[in-house]
Amino acid sequence: MDNRFKKQLDFILEIDKEKNIFRQNNITGNGRRENDAEHAWHMAIMIYLLREYSNEDFDVAKAMMMALIHDIVEIDAGDTYAYGDDGKDSQQEREEKAAQRIFGLLPDGQRDELIALFHEFEACETSEARFARAMDNFQPFLLNNSNDGDSWREHGVTYSRIYNRQIRSKKGSEHVWNYTEKMIEENILKGNIIDDKQ
Amino acid sequence: MDNRFKKQLDFILEIDKEKNIFRQNNITGNGRRENDAEHAWHMAIMIYLLREYSNEDFDVAKAMMMALIHDIVEIDAGDTYAYGDDGKDSQQEREEKAAQRIFGLLPDGQRDELIALFHEFEACETSEARFARAMDNFQPFLLNNSNDGDSWREHGVTYSRIYNRQIRSKKGSEHVWNYTEKMIEENILKGNIIDDKQ
Repeated sequence: MDNRFKKQLDFILEIDKEKNIFRQNNITGNGRRENDAEHAWHMAIMIYLLREYSNEDFDVAKAMMMALIHDIVEIDAGDTYAYGDDGKDSQQEREEKAAQRIFGLLPDGQRDELIALFHEFEACETSEARFARAMDNFQPFLLNNSNDGDSWREHGVTYSRIYNRQIRSKKGSEHVWNYTEKMIEENILKGNIIDDKQ
Repeated sequence: MDNRFKKQLDFILEIDKEKNIFRQNNITGNGRRENDAEHAWHMAIMIYLLREYSNEDFDVAKAMMMALIHDIVEIDAGDTYAYGDDGKDSQQEREEKAAQRIFGLLPDGQRDELIALFHEFEACETSEARFARAMDNFQPFLLNNSNDGDSWREHGVTYSRIYNRQIRSKKGSEHVWNYTEKMIEENILKGNIIDDKQ
């Protein structure tokens, strides 16, 4: 087997481990945690189907690929909960080290391409990244909302925590943010999100 | 909420169930079954990274979307094992009915688009479908190979079963088929695949 193909297969097998990185939110109905591979799959399909709600034109395929690979670093760096403080300080450093090791398994050209795509997602300064990040917020939000806010209740999540996270989706999609805002209010009324306004 | 957006969200929540459809092969190392969403995620990334080995030029984004949605029908129709006979006769009918119901949750235009994409994958008559189908075969093959053939041994899978399935990848990628063929021989020598040649 030639060395280039071997490197590609080594990477493909390594990222299989993403299926063992479990997140804080549950899948619908079932009551088990979702893993990063499932989340990325769902997010990529959402980017495709909801692309008409992006604030700006964007390259759909590029944003989908961003979604598919954005959590690969968590194989080494672990999942950092969106509504918690634990590990937030060291997150960027841990994820950068992970990106170098894991994408570094690929042939140089593909390594550089995927690291650049990961950095672009993180920086959130392009239309692709803005819409992909909006879907990264919206996907677990939808699941939580469908499960009567189970993981919000479990973690005692407050309005200000959710607002500060979800408002970022507005940069990618006003439409998605407007819906999210309504759902946050509904979940406060249901007692699923703690009201700490003012 | 407008009706179009509602339909899109209904579909997005419905396909969450794909995370509960478990396949016959295991993920690497861990010893648990892989589910359809994880398989589709992995396959889409493989299409992107291994695209240089396609026999023909193809639209990478289209093939990736095909991969992401190709098993959604199994939410209703269940997983039909590649190396078994059970359910093969009724598979097509069950999957067609599932496609109509599940993609039918979407607004008409997106419903028609995704059903067409699913049919194109199944028919395997375009360059996109040929390469996507090759990755549909190669992805679980790689996992089985990395796990010392655990699910082949568990199911007592023979050479002729594997050959007849995997040889179809040749239409999408000679390169991938050549590697697969070598790995089949290695796994026969290791006793992971039953040799029933001639």
